[in-house]
Amino acid sequence: MQRFEAGSRPTRTAPAEWFTGTVTQDPIVEAEAPARLRAASVTFQPGARTNWHTHPLGQTLYVVSGKGRAQTWGGPMIELGVGDTIWIPPGEKHWHGAAPDEAMTHIAMHEALDGSHIDWLEPVTDKQYAG
Amino acid sequence: MQRFEAGSRPTRTAPAEWFTGTVTQDPIVEAEAPARLRAASVTFQPGARTNWHTHPLGQTLYVVSGKGRAQTWGGPMIELGVGDTIWIPPGEKHWHGAAPDEAMTHIAMHEALDGSHIDWLEPVTDKQYAG
Repeated sequence: MQRFEAGSRPTRTAPAEWFTGTVTQDPIVEAEAPARLRAASVTFQPGARTNWHTHPLGQTLYVVSGKGRAQTWGGPMIELGVGDTIWIPPGEKHWHGAAPDEAMTHIAMHEALDGSHIDWLEPVTDKQYAG
Repeated sequence: MQRFEAGSRPTRTAPAEWFTGTVTQDPIVEAEAPARLRAASVTFQPGARTNWHTHPLGQTLYVVSGKGRAQTWGGPMIELGVGDTIWIPPGEKHWHGAAPDEAMTHIAMHEALDGSHIDWLEPVTDKQYAG
């Protein structure tokens, strides 16, 4: 059993290459094989969001504070509140982020396949973000 | 993309066969193959805890409120606070639960192997729980 105390792993700023706005990540786990779970607590400041992206084995998002948004390519905008869960199936192109005027923190959980857990695509434009 | 709104899936009472005290579970995800992630938010009332158990592909616990305890068979008692993460490797016999006088909620994340994500063992005695 291994404990990672709160505050023992520095908060990371998410790379501007793959995110719009200010996004920070607190690592939770990167399990070693044969396990493949990856998890982090991710905070999006108002208006901040991921690029479009996919996950080879899907992703689960569990909102722990604030208000957010998520969308599948070609699908409706989905609003996110505290306690909501989103399941994104393997290979589905999507994005997620904060509401325009309110920050959002979610726990992101996904599984690595052959060492990769995400494939990054183009940014979400302001027009796409506005719905 | 599938949304499960907060409150849309009833809180379950954890079975007395495998837990001591009052424990409730709010489901987060049971991903379909090829994904294998299982996650739930689990709340232990003061003094409540799991039985001893193992996970075929390990388990990650992320504490979101309160104070708790966790222990590997033969190992020291580990105290848990908000924001702490615990990683339990595959097959490691352990338990987790609340502190004696304070409730604890954690997000539990683990992976199913051949449809099973947990193997339950004997209860944690009051003497074991007291350390």
